[in-house]
Amino acid sequence: MGFEAIERGSVTTPRGFAASGVTAGLKRSGAPDMALIHSPSPAIVAGAFTANVVCAAPVQYDRDILAGSKTVHAVLVNSGNANACTGQTGLEDAATCATAAAKLLNIAPEEVLVSSTGRIGVPLPMDTMLAGIEAAAAALSDDAGLDVADAIMTTDTRPKSIAIAVELGGKTVHIGGTAKGAGMIAPKLRMQPPQATMLAYVTTDVAITKQALDAALGSSLDSSFNRITVDGDTSTNDTLLVLANGAAGNDEIDESRQDFAAFAGALEHVLGWLAKELVLDGEGVTRFVEVHVTGAKSDEDARQCAEAIANSALCKTAWFGADPNWGRILCAAGYSGIDFDPMKINLDYGDVPVMRNGADAGTPEADQVAAIDRREFRVGLDLGSGQGTFTVWTCDLTYEYVKINADYHT
Amino acid sequence: MGFEAIERGSVTTPRGFAASGVTAGLKRSGAPDMALIHSPSPAIVAGAFTANVVCAAPVQYDRDILAGSKTVHAVLVNSGNANACTGQTGLEDAATCATAAAKLLNIAPEEVLVSSTGRIGVPLPMDTMLAGIEAAAAALSDDAGLDVADAIMTTDTRPKSIAIAVELGGKTVHIGGTAKGAGMIAPKLRMQPPQATMLAYVTTDVAITKQALDAALGSSLDSSFNRITVDGDTSTNDTLLVLANGAAGNDEIDESRQDFAAFAGALEHVLGWLAKELVLDGEGVTRFVEVHVTGAKSDEDARQCAEAIANSALCKTAWFGADPNWGRILCAAGYSGIDFDPMKINLDYGDVPVMRNGADAGTPEADQVAAIDRREFRVGLDLGSGQGTFTVWTCDLTYEYVKINADYHT
Repeated sequence: MGFEAIERGSVTTPRGFAASGVTAGLKRSGAPDMALIHSPSPAIVAGAFTANVVCAAPVQYDRDILAGSKTVHAVLVNSGNANACTGQTGLEDAATCATAAAKLLNIAPEEVLVSSTGRIGVPLPMDTMLAGIEAAAAALSDDAGLDVADAIMTTDTRPKSIAIAVELGGKTVHIGGTAKGAGMIAPKLRMQPPQATMLAYVTTDVAITKQALDAALGSSLDSSFNRITVDGDTSTNDTLLVLANGAAGNDEIDESRQDFAAFAGALEHVLGWLAKELVLDGEGVTRFVEVHVTGAKSDEDARQCAEAIANSALCKTAWFGADPNWGRILCAAGYSGIDFDPMKINLDYGDVPVMRNGADAGTPEADQVAAIDRREFRVGLDLGSGQGTFTVWTCDLTYEYVKINADYHT
Repeated sequence: MGFEAIERGSVTTPRGFAASGVTAGLKRSGAPDMALIHSPSPAIVAGAFTANVVCAAPVQYDRDILAGSKTVHAVLVNSGNANACTGQTGLEDAATCATAAAKLLNIAPEEVLVSSTGRIGVPLPMDTMLAGIEAAAAALSDDAGLDVADAIMTTDTRPKSIAIAVELGGKTVHIGGTAKGAGMIAPKLRMQPPQATMLAYVTTDVAITKQALDAALGSSLDSSFNRITVDGDTSTNDTLLVLANGAAGNDEIDESRQDFAAFAGALEHVLGWLAKELVLDGEGVTRFVEVHVTGAKSDEDARQCAEAIANSALCKTAWFGADPNWGRILCAAGYSGIDFDPMKINLDYGDVPVMRNGADAGTPEADQVAAIDRREFRVGLDLGSGQGTFTVWTCDLTYEYVKINADYHT
C-alpha cells in the first residue's frame, strides 16, 4: 500500500499536534502517569468504547462529548486510577479534569476528552490530578509523543508507539498512534457507542469528513483491537480515539473518493500494529498465537469459536507448555455454542497438519511440538461447514500472569 | 430432611450393587484405571451428558442406549484415555468394550453403559482395555465401592465417595455416589441428552419409575453439577448416571407420591456434595468461592452473570492473592452480556459489605481481606434489578493450575 514507517514515530509525528507525558503522582512507583495530546486546530474525532455495561466515568463522559460534537482539541489521559465504579463523584471528577485542562489550553470544556486506567473503585485524588494537569499543559511540545506512550502504561513492560506516512492526493499524510494494554484485554469495541483497559490514541493530519473517519475506524476494528484477547476480561475503560486535524492540506477525504480506501488501509495498519503489540506485551505472555477459524457457517460463528479457543485456560496453559494437546482446542470449539460436524474438522499448527476429518492426522508428535514451541505461531481450524471466517490474536497463560494478577494490589 | 450419612459409604452401599476398581494399565503411573459397577437386577437408569458439540464416543454410545432402554445392569469406566476425537474407531471401540463386559456378566450388550476420561485424541489401546475388563469383572464385590472412586481419578488428588440412608414409606433407601473432576470442569449437563470431564455415578436401591427418576435428576442438576466451574472448559466427556435397582423394597415411587420430594431431596444432597467436592479438589485450588447473584432480571441472567465472574481469570487470580479488588467482579458482571444498572449494585464478601449502590461501601480494606483470605467464602452480588437468582461454586486460579496443565502431557 506504500506506507513509510517513521523511525521513533509517535502521536506528535502528524503536523499540528503537541503532547506531553508527566508524573502527577498517581502511581506508587513514581513512574509517569499523565499524558496530554493537543491540537490547536480543531480535530475531527472518532471514538470507540467498551461494550461493558459497567463503564468507567471517563467513558461515559467521552461518549456524551462525541454525541454532541464533531471536533475536539485535546485528550487528557491518566494511569494509576481507572475512575471506574466511582458513581456520581467519578462523573463530576471527569468533568472537573476536562474543565481544568480546557482553561489552561484556552478552549471549551467540551473540546477535551478524558481517559483513565488503573485501579477500579477508588475516586481520583483530585488535588494530585489538578496539579498534574497544570504540569502536563506546561510540558506540551511537538516532539514529546513518545512521552505519551510512557505515561499511559500500567502493567505494560514497554511503550507502544508508531507513525507512518502515506501519500494521498499528492500530499503526505501522517498517522501516529500509541496504546497500552497488558491485562483485562478482550476489547469489544463498539462505535457509537463502543468501549477497553485497552487505551489507544491515534492522531493524523489528514483532512477528512467526520463520516469518512467514522467509516474508516469502523471497518478497521474487527481486524485490530476487536480480534485481540489476553484474558477474556473486557474492561470497563477500553477507549480508542482518533483525532484528525487536517494539517496535511490534502483535499478533504469523503467516502466517495478514491483515496478513502488508501487512508482506511493506512489506519487499519496502524491499529493492527498497536493491537498486536498489546498481545505481545500482555501480562506474562511468552507466546503470541493467531487462532484462525475458517469453514464456519457464518463469520459470527467463526468469531465465537475462535474466541472460545483463545480464552480457554486449558488451551492457553498447553501453549505455555508447548503441549500439542489438540483435544483441548476441539473441546473449546465444541462448547463455543456454535454448530458444526466434528467429523469434518481439519486442524493445523502453522503448516503442520494435526487433524484431518475429525481425527489425528498422523503427524509425529515431535513435529507438532516444533510447530508451537516458538514465540509466534498460528492455530488454523477449518470447521468444514461453511464460508465463515475470523481471526483472533491471543497468547499463553503463564505463572507470570497469575503472579501479576494475584499481586497487583499489594 | 432426615438423611443418615454412612461412614465409608460408596456405590456399593445400596443393596444389590457390586463393583470393582482395577489397574488395566492405561495410565503411565500404574494407578487403578478401570471400574465396573454391576446390578444383577435390572436398574432403572437416568443420565445427563455434556452439551459439548464435540462429544466423546462413550457419550454418544450411552445416549443411544438411554434413548432405547429404561434399564441397564452395568457401567464400565476407564480413566487414562477419553476416547474422544477418535472418529468411527472410537464408537466401535466403545461398543466392543460394552460387548466384552456384557459377555462376562452374561447380559446383553445394550445393558452396559461405558465412560472414559483422560487424554483426548488417542484411540483406546484395545488389548489393554479387554484384559482390564476381564480383571474388573473377576474382581466384582459388594464392598468394593471405594475402589471405583479410586479408579476413575485423573488429576484428582483424592477419591470422592458418599452414601446416605433415608426412610421412604417405612423402608430404608440408600443412595451412593462417586465422582471425579479436577480440570476441564464447567459441566453443562443436559437431560435427554445432557453431558462433563466430570464423571459421576450414583447408585440407589430405591424402587422408582423411570419418569420419576428423570424428574428427580433433572431438578437436581442446577443445584449441583451445573453450578460448578473450575476453569470454564466444558468437557467432551461429562457424564452423570443414576442407577436405581429397587432392592430396598419400598412401594415404587412416582411423581405423584409424597415420598417423591423426599427422594429428590436426598438425591440432590448427594449430587450437591459430590459437585462441591469436585471444586474443592479442582486443579491447584486453594480457595472455594460461592458466587451468589441476586436481583437479576431473570434466573438465566443471574446464571450468566455468576458464570462470567466465576470464570474470570482476573477475579480468580485476585482470589488466589486474597486481593479484595472488587472492580474485577463488577467488570465481569458488566461484560457478562446481561443488562443492569451499575448504580444499583450491592456487593458483599461473606457478611462484609463491599459495595452499596454502585460505590465503595467504606469497609476498611483489612476487613475485606479478612473476609476472603480463607479456604471458603461467598461473593454476594445483588444487581437490584429484579428477582432472578443463581449460585455458582468455583475456585481460585493458581500457579499450580498452570503447572498441572502446562505439564499434563509430559
